[in-house]
Amino acid sequence: MVQHFFYPETIAIVGATADPKKFGNAVTVNLVNNEGLKSELFPINPKSDEILGLQSYSSVLDVPKDIDLAIILVPSKAVPIVVNQCIEKKVKRIVIVSAGFGEIDEEGKKIQEEMAKKATSAGIRIIGPNCVGIMNVDIGMNASFVITPTQGKVSMATQSGSFGAACLYEMEWQGIGFSKFANLGNMTDINLTDLIQYFKDDKATQVVCIYLENVVDGRKFYETLKEITQVKPTIILKGGRTSAGAKAASSHTGSIATDYSSLKAAIKQAGATLCESMNDYVTAIKAFSYSPLPTGNRVGLFTNSGGSAVLFSDNLEEFGLELAEFSAEFKEKINPFVIPLVKKVNPLDMIAGARGEEFYQVAKTMFEDPNIDIVIPCVVIPTFLEMQPDEHFKGVIRAWNDTGRKKPILPIFMSGKLMESVKKIAAEENAPIFMSPKEAAFAAKVLIDRMKKFQK
Amino acid sequence: MVQHFFYPETIAIVGATADPKKFGNAVTVNLVNNEGLKSELFPINPKSDEILGLQSYSSVLDVPKDIDLAIILVPSKAVPIVVNQCIEKKVKRIVIVSAGFGEIDEEGKKIQEEMAKKATSAGIRIIGPNCVGIMNVDIGMNASFVITPTQGKVSMATQSGSFGAACLYEMEWQGIGFSKFANLGNMTDINLTDLIQYFKDDKATQVVCIYLENVVDGRKFYETLKEITQVKPTIILKGGRTSAGAKAASSHTGSIATDYSSLKAAIKQAGATLCESMNDYVTAIKAFSYSPLPTGNRVGLFTNSGGSAVLFSDNLEEFGLELAEFSAEFKEKINPFVIPLVKKVNPLDMIAGARGEEFYQVAKTMFEDPNIDIVIPCVVIPTFLEMQPDEHFKGVIRAWNDTGRKKPILPIFMSGKLMESVKKIAAEENAPIFMSPKEAAFAAKVLIDRMKKFQK
Repeated sequence: MVQHFFYPETIAIVGATADPKKFGNAVTVNLVNNEGLKSELFPINPKSDEILGLQSYSSVLDVPKDIDLAIILVPSKAVPIVVNQCIEKKVKRIVIVSAGFGEIDEEGKKIQEEMAKKATSAGIRIIGPNCVGIMNVDIGMNASFVITPTQGKVSMATQSGSFGAACLYEMEWQGIGFSKFANLGNMTDINLTDLIQYFKDDKATQVVCIYLENVVDGRKFYETLKEITQVKPTIILKGGRTSAGAKAASSHTGSIATDYSSLKAAIKQAGATLCESMNDYVTAIKAFSYSPLPTGNRVGLFTNSGGSAVLFSDNLEEFGLELAEFSAEFKEKINPFVIPLVKKVNPLDMIAGARGEEFYQVAKTMFEDPNIDIVIPCVVIPTFLEMQPDEHFKGVIRAWNDTGRKKPILPIFMSGKLMESVKKIAAEENAPIFMSPKEAAFAAKVLIDRMKKFQK
Repeated sequence: MVQHFFYPETIAIVGATADPKKFGNAVTVNLVNNEGLKSELFPINPKSDEILGLQSYSSVLDVPKDIDLAIILVPSKAVPIVVNQCIEKKVKRIVIVSAGFGEIDEEGKKIQEEMAKKATSAGIRIIGPNCVGIMNVDIGMNASFVITPTQGKVSMATQSGSFGAACLYEMEWQGIGFSKFANLGNMTDINLTDLIQYFKDDKATQVVCIYLENVVDGRKFYETLKEITQVKPTIILKGGRTSAGAKAASSHTGSIATDYSSLKAAIKQAGATLCESMNDYVTAIKAFSYSPLPTGNRVGLFTNSGGSAVLFSDNLEEFGLELAEFSAEFKEKINPFVIPLVKKVNPLDMIAGARGEEFYQVAKTMFEDPNIDIVIPCVVIPTFLEMQPDEHFKGVIRAWNDTGRKKPILPIFMSGKLMESVKKIAAEENAPIFMSPKEAAFAAKVLIDRMKKFQK
């Protein structure tokens, strides 16, 4: 059902325009200019014969082929007419990008509900209205007005298009790729539960993330969530947790925000990962995007920064977690790679002079140690002893690779501008970076929570 | 007393070396290569006659002038000998960078205490041992082995050198400049309270930040803190809050971490800003670095991202704060600058098409509105309608400038790589950027907390 939105053979762009001063232009360009996209495109605009090199049509009714997906970009007043034409044309799926419906007033709500009723009676499903659109990065389809991310295994369903875009920007910047993206807007037909159901079955999707403000059918949402968490990590951020947030949410999507306390309990019970800030949300997505689940909860940290190790230890305990105890064997094995000043306790402070090679050796020993389940290198990049800014990162990733990437690695690197070379290697090596002790501790927490819930 | 550490006319670098493979090289280079530094430098190294173009001496005793400050970089075993020579030479102040004392064992603790006792009896004060050094960016003095930050008005005292360096990197990257920096290490003589006392009197210092693990004299610390907060915002992050953190702290600086619950109460009572993560710490420093204090607690938010506004509203309420109510007059004034779809409520969702000029007008109206005390623009940078990535930021900063920067502005910009041009303008304009709704809400909270405490 939702599948058809993401794999259309033919797409009509209703309100397509080559004029960059008009709103419909970004969606038109994102679809037309994507060379990887094999779907056939039909721009619809009564004022043009040709748009960006493609033949344009006055209405969907004039298109000579069946239409799998219609993207509607016209002003709100014209939308019901276009939807009627889509019904007549037997278009399979519709995405209404246009705003000006249920989020505005009761009248708008009635109009969107009538459109949905008519369409669904004809077997047509609708995403929107009031959304930035949808994407299937796997086939090069960006039917939205936000940037095209790199291809990856994360899929997102979001009630806020722009916040979805913000996360997408952030993840792109951090090297995390996307498979599917859907902004559901006012959810007059297709809702979050439908998307979650689809992501569960979609093979390309391996990590699921959801931004939501209200849940339409609580029971069904909970049951679907319970199913998907069995097979895929599912990360949820809820907007409208407080009364001020709920008030803001009601002007945002025209819906009454779902009460948080009961939803929170349901999300946890279902085994999803609950986040309460954008930072935690992106951190959790990162944690699940690169790492296998740990097989235990024993964390090993080694660092060139004692203070950062102290802060990490605090965060870990505040999240209810513990550091591993180093075994006598482990201490003996790392002995050649640490200077005599180093105390062989966890967190292991290897002191400022430790280099990439020592980091490689200690990381490798931790990966091979049966008493350590999650490996956390923590580095403030040194600017002395001729050290390269990326040598510690290279060292720990080499150790991860040499040991078959069997345990999660959650590297903390905190070095402002010096991070650029490290981020480049992270992207090439498909490895994560966390930007603070707290981020890595939160990442460890969400991995361990999931391990405890599903791998007993 | 502490003043003399930061304004020496003559500096001896004991253990100076031109060999980049040796630890002392970074400190030597940071001092010698800083063209702005007017202090006279005396490298001390029995194995060289000349270091980086400067005449080198076998011992401080051979230096033909009085020495205001000696930086000691030699291995721990040689440190007591050098300290004795410094006493004989009547050096005024000593920074012992070398590690291998109280953080290692009882023996090391005894040695550092003996050195401190001898030195202080001779009227000489010591910073360290086990530290990265000190800086006075105002006079171009970087007597440490970390990078030289840009000049600014923040001064930091930190028990962790590398965590201090991490914050310094982060602030540098975010465009926040430094005045003084001191890593106190094992604090065998000079402690945090001494530094706070000095920062209070130092005119160049306008914002004070402290990373601490243990407090030597609780009563004096509290009294000094109470004094400084009257005149300067003082931000504190405590490592070793939990039992795991305290354990890590004891291997880090050889001290028993101060119990957190009582310290927390004292810090709050004294009117300092308490943070519990690196992110909050940097956010609070940013909040106080650019903005005047607000004169009330009414927050106005306008945005092109409805979901981000929802999340901000949640964060604000979670921090115990409230959004302002828009007056009828305000609504009328912004009317020409928002499209009819926009609901004139706070947070004001101006929807995705709003441009830099509209952001300028709404920002200006908020700055001029007597019912709004803190102005928060929130932007996900659009990639459509030919918008420039920096036009919204330019608009709001222009409004801030045009109204005399009388109210705090806390701009939220969330756009990954597109942030580069915005960050450049922020640096040029000396304006802050916050990276998420939660950061800006926390910034509003710390400003309001300080306003309530000191501007009743």
